[in-house]
Amino acid sequence: MSAIDIAKRVYDHTWKLDPIVRSLLDTDFYKLLMLQMIWGRYPEVQATFSLINRTKRVRIADEIDEKMLRDQLDYARTLRLTKKEMIWLAGNTFYGRKQIFAPEFLEWLSHFQLPEYDLRREDGQYVLEFHGPWTHTSMWEIPALAIITELRSRAALRGMGKFTLDVVYARAKAKLWNKVERLRALPELRISDFGTRRRHSFLWQRWCVEALKEGLGKAFTGSSNVLLAMDNDLEAIGTNAHELPMVFAALAQTDQELLMSPYEVLQDWQSYYGGNLLIVLPDTFGTTSFLRHAPDWVADWRGFRPDSAPPIQGGEQIITWWQMRGRDPKEKLLVFSDALDAETIESTYNHFHGRVRMSFGWGTNLTNDFRGCAPTPISSLDPISLVCKVSTANGRPAVKLSDNPSKATGDAEVVERYLRVFGQEGRVKQAVAV
Amino acid sequence: MSAIDIAKRVYDHTWKLDPIVRSLLDTDFYKLLMLQMIWGRYPEVQATFSLINRTKRVRIADEIDEKMLRDQLDYARTLRLTKKEMIWLAGNTFYGRKQIFAPEFLEWLSHFQLPEYDLRREDGQYVLEFHGPWTHTSMWEIPALAIITELRSRAALRGMGKFTLDVVYARAKAKLWNKVERLRALPELRISDFGTRRRHSFLWQRWCVEALKEGLGKAFTGSSNVLLAMDNDLEAIGTNAHELPMVFAALAQTDQELLMSPYEVLQDWQSYYGGNLLIVLPDTFGTTSFLRHAPDWVADWRGFRPDSAPPIQGGEQIITWWQMRGRDPKEKLLVFSDALDAETIESTYNHFHGRVRMSFGWGTNLTNDFRGCAPTPISSLDPISLVCKVSTANGRPAVKLSDNPSKATGDAEVVERYLRVFGQEGRVKQAVAV
Repeated sequence: MSAIDIAKRVYDHTWKLDPIVRSLLDTDFYKLLMLQMIWGRYPEVQATFSLINRTKRVRIADEIDEKMLRDQLDYARTLRLTKKEMIWLAGNTFYGRKQIFAPEFLEWLSHFQLPEYDLRREDGQYVLEFHGPWTHTSMWEIPALAIITELRSRAALRGMGKFTLDVVYARAKAKLWNKVERLRALPELRISDFGTRRRHSFLWQRWCVEALKEGLGKAFTGSSNVLLAMDNDLEAIGTNAHELPMVFAALAQTDQELLMSPYEVLQDWQSYYGGNLLIVLPDTFGTTSFLRHAPDWVADWRGFRPDSAPPIQGGEQIITWWQMRGRDPKEKLLVFSDALDAETIESTYNHFHGRVRMSFGWGTNLTNDFRGCAPTPISSLDPISLVCKVSTANGRPAVKLSDNPSKATGDAEVVERYLRVFGQEGRVKQAVAV
Repeated sequence: MSAIDIAKRVYDHTWKLDPIVRSLLDTDFYKLLMLQMIWGRYPEVQATFSLINRTKRVRIADEIDEKMLRDQLDYARTLRLTKKEMIWLAGNTFYGRKQIFAPEFLEWLSHFQLPEYDLRREDGQYVLEFHGPWTHTSMWEIPALAIITELRSRAALRGMGKFTLDVVYARAKAKLWNKVERLRALPELRISDFGTRRRHSFLWQRWCVEALKEGLGKAFTGSSNVLLAMDNDLEAIGTNAHELPMVFAALAQTDQELLMSPYEVLQDWQSYYGGNLLIVLPDTFGTTSFLRHAPDWVADWRGFRPDSAPPIQGGEQIITWWQMRGRDPKEKLLVFSDALDAETIESTYNHFHGRVRMSFGWGTNLTNDFRGCAPTPISSLDPISLVCKVSTANGRPAVKLSDNPSKATGDAEVVERYLRVFGQEGRVKQAVAV
């Protein structure tokens, strides 16, 4: 007796592709903020971005069909910003600021298209690289990761019956909601979705975002995903990422220039954005080094985002530094965003509560936690540590040291030089789960 | 971009009622088996069936709107068996037997309509009674219970957002599937759905049945729900119920006739049905009394369904009795069906495994376990102990003693007389959850 829309069913038969990325706004907000600065000040820099699978045991090229991957990447290249999207970018208020994007930048952006890609297989992995102007290659990071991650999910779920799939998603929903109920107990929590790049799928991320919106109320401050922020009337969240200091460092000629490059980034940033957007990402070449050499004005910034040190240890280090510089941590913000889950959010919140402002950017364990949800234990639904990092700038190697040596990227020899310049004090090796 | 079927949407706007019971086969199979015998041998008996809410603290009449209840009951009265349903009843094989229903009975059944009902409110409860020929009033038991139970669910869920509802059902699905995975570990389990009367809703029972079919494979032997058995190509499961001995007892004139009435039922039953359908329901007036006075041929029946004693104790009592009568329990069947859940099924299975054949009729905790699934703890989704029992036969009071005094029904004075005749040895008071 259930009504079947015959026309829809027949239309569905004609599908050639179920696109994963369907909008250029299906990306992280910080990419757009960084892009405006790159466009404004470094339009000539050439930058290569490269896919890096840190979970080596997972042979992505064996899991995902190359033709399917190419079809998805090709589809993403057909996308342009729509009129509605352009109007929203121009008219919306971000971090309390109107017209954060300059009209000239938006004009340029309206013609934006993702550039070409290089793809080949090597030893069970995909070598996926994007060559060209930094203004273009940078924009592949999030869609490339989202496409590969969702293709992995689709491969893992292929062959499961309709009913089994129903149970898989029911369990994942129940699991997330249990986390929501735990987090609801933290009265002053401020948390946002940072889960685009490693989401199980677009539709699942959308469900998660709607879940947090309904379940956490005003404790849920928004999403890093621009499209989901627009569609759900949420704040678009995010400031800047490692690619800025990595490129600045790569372009530095002398050791002294290299040592100072992270602060140069901040000066550039400050000239573009102010107020709530002044969040320092200190760990690109080690937080300890960063703090030691930081000019005093860095302590005037609104907050820090420790992204690779253990959260409590990393937060304490920054608080101590603020105090040494005579700033009151209670006026400052710590943004935690590395490998968070309900438990680490709780323990970090409880540890720092009352001593500093905090916000949490919840990523992979929000949008891709299907552990234990499959009818039989399978690892192919588990998220992996996949990143897409700038690897060269104007032909020079770009590297990241990180507070966690397991998260370092780049050529070993160059890493050696950077370690000599920045020192390696305070770096702590930890397993990288996601 | 999602395609909306406008015609369907507009049609949906015209809904006056979302009927709960949409088929006369949406009932338990044993009602049809009993009905054929009642139709054949007791067409003149007048029997009243009455709703009894054993969970007094729940004020059903405050939870459920009277108009909605009347609308649903009225709708059920419009139902007739369809051609497809009649053909299936005539052509299907039940318990290995073809043509279990006589053509004359089916001819009569094809005109069947549920009789009128009497409904009034009293102290927060509904007094719902069905007066008339036993052949008609008996058929209200299951639809009346299903309607009231689903109206309670609908009332409990009313006002929850679309998203919250999604989480409620996701949790219930995850919960049931965890039980399925536990039960899958019992290699010789035979289990069927007995959950029609106290189901959360029809659609939810259907989901549960499909879940057991997919999850338990051949361990899932069928459903007591005739409609779901037909639609899913499952065995329709069930034999007989307390109403038979209750009516026979009510019609008995002397104490001796009363004491013998349970065996008279069995003789009648045997003349109608044989083989796999010879399952004794021994607890109507106490199992201990039943076994003590039982003629030897009762031990030749295929099995027993202990329905109110604690399962292990009740099963042991029957096994001992079989052994005393020189029968091998390994050739016999125990059907457990009282207040089962995964845990009691496991413990009962493990206790008796290898000593007797077993099957389980899983009811309320299969089709209505939403405990802990709501976003905030609410009791209105919890199942209650609601029954619809024969209360008079030809104007004489009908009572049930049960092995559990908490499950006794009927007038106190008459219960006294029955206890004098049958004795009360072996009865154990236990809380009745569902």
